[in-house]
Amino acid sequence: MTDTPLFERVTIIGIGLIGSSLARALKAGGLAGHVAAHDIDAGVRATAEKLGFADSVHAALDEAVAGADLVVLAVPVGVYRATATAMSPHLAAGAIVTDVGSVKAEVFRAVKPVLPAGVHLVPGHPVAGTEHSGPEAGFADLFRDRWAILTPEKGTDEKAVARVAEMWRQVGSDVEIMEASHHDRVLAITSHLPHLIAYTIVATAADLESQLQGERKGDDVVTTAEVIKYSAGGFRDFTRIAGSNPVMWRDVFLTNKEAVLEMLGRFSEDLTALQRAIRWEDGDQLEQLFTRTRDIRRGVVEARQAGRFQYTENGDDEAKE
Amino acid sequence: MTDTPLFERVTIIGIGLIGSSLARALKAGGLAGHVAAHDIDAGVRATAEKLGFADSVHAALDEAVAGADLVVLAVPVGVYRATATAMSPHLAAGAIVTDVGSVKAEVFRAVKPVLPAGVHLVPGHPVAGTEHSGPEAGFADLFRDRWAILTPEKGTDEKAVARVAEMWRQVGSDVEIMEASHHDRVLAITSHLPHLIAYTIVATAADLESQLQGERKGDDVVTTAEVIKYSAGGFRDFTRIAGSNPVMWRDVFLTNKEAVLEMLGRFSEDLTALQRAIRWEDGDQLEQLFTRTRDIRRGVVEARQAGRFQYTENGDDEAKE
Repeated sequence: MTDTPLFERVTIIGIGLIGSSLARALKAGGLAGHVAAHDIDAGVRATAEKLGFADSVHAALDEAVAGADLVVLAVPVGVYRATATAMSPHLAAGAIVTDVGSVKAEVFRAVKPVLPAGVHLVPGHPVAGTEHSGPEAGFADLFRDRWAILTPEKGTDEKAVARVAEMWRQVGSDVEIMEASHHDRVLAITSHLPHLIAYTIVATAADLESQLQGERKGDDVVTTAEVIKYSAGGFRDFTRIAGSNPVMWRDVFLTNKEAVLEMLGRFSEDLTALQRAIRWEDGDQLEQLFTRTRDIRRGVVEARQAGRFQYTENGDDEAKE
Repeated sequence: MTDTPLFERVTIIGIGLIGSSLARALKAGGLAGHVAAHDIDAGVRATAEKLGFADSVHAALDEAVAGADLVVLAVPVGVYRATATAMSPHLAAGAIVTDVGSVKAEVFRAVKPVLPAGVHLVPGHPVAGTEHSGPEAGFADLFRDRWAILTPEKGTDEKAVARVAEMWRQVGSDVEIMEASHHDRVLAITSHLPHLIAYTIVATAADLESQLQGERKGDDVVTTAEVIKYSAGGFRDFTRIAGSNPVMWRDVFLTNKEAVLEMLGRFSEDLTALQRAIRWEDGDQLEQLFTRTRDIRRGVVEARQAGRFQYTENGDDEAKE
């Protein structure tokens, strides 16, 4: 709690899982004099009114952003340009615009060109979320012990960057600053490709019953019921992230195309090499690969168990705090 | 607890995670008059002696199986033939041989031809496990609320099948009986392909730092430390199963080659279609795929939350007990 809030008026545009969680966290921490919320969906606005996580809920975008010293874009990346274009004429002089999107270079392509002079753009990405969507799914602690990555361009007002960083720290996150293009490559392998693969294998499994029954009657069909029944064998680890918001993820893949295609190309090559090793019964190659993945796995397991850890050059984990 | 144990002497061959867990569960439930254990590794035998989960630990296979009315193969599938060949002359008449391997048709190829007449073969697969290996990792409750699949051939002695089924029920599992070839197709999609994909993406990620630094200096390198640091974005869901026993998994892929290659082919086709959709920026195709995976995910989530559930034809989940 602070006597003078960090921001006088924060406007959150798009109040799904992330936007509504941030609204809750800002209010819980007393970080904003006023939290205003806007959503294009009347049903979502009604839910927001009912749940009361914002001080005001606006159908009109211009009303929502008027007088805000911080505006947070929490809509799918695909509507960034349209949203920024619509709100720009109504932004207060000196306002800070940030976002919570999973891709960052796109913010400079879609948002920056339409912002008025004197408005500070500090793109951000809280690496947090659940497989649920919508304003009911949000909660104030979503960002606790998570990373928040900021990707301001060189020359961005340092005070603006510091204030956005402080907001994330106050809601419990650790803040890192990096270049937008680097963020997009890191997240392509740690988040975007895993989601793409998870969506794919769940669809592949779901198709087994319909495709085989339809086309090759008499085949030994694996049913969807069986896939679910025996999912504890490994499959279910993939299903959690395959339930994430479809529109959000569509936009991630369309706007981080180059990095995703590079990582996907690398993955496909590696998978094809394993496919060949299986066909040629090259047990040594399989065993070698299965063995050398252990180090990175241990790092992830230890980082998770510790909550917040940094991985150091010599392979030891070192507590951050 | 029963007054007369289900088996007089159970011999477990291979006392890693699964074998040692079964030994513990048999003793905890009073299901065997004597639990004998054999392992080819002297260090594992010493650990077993120290932990005391078996009544006797044997360096000699013939000693271990002598007089056993149930022999459980819990070694990697790749050594089934050699192990079965070595133990066969020493099996008691009327003994039951079962196993805990993740592939089942291979049991009839590798084990059945070398067993003496009068010995009953009842292949089995407890769909249970953790990412840890070795006798220290085992625990008596590993099989509780899990499926145990038995795949006896037609004509197998019904009493032998019933006794093995009863053992699994007594250690807490639900038992299903199906054909070995069907088991291998079901598990290829629910377990084997997920493991192959998880191993691959972890290796792809681990290679980013070394390959890019080595070959293209000056590139924007994603380090292993960063992959671990930001793994909460989805990647870490894949790392758990990529830590499983490398030798066991090598043998699974070599001995369930046809089914794994079929499922892998289907997955690769689906992934290539998505790759093309990203390259051509076909947002509709992406969104449609991401949306239609939701049903199967919900089934898995609900089945997991309920512990034991069956998926019914109309899509509703129905409690089993």
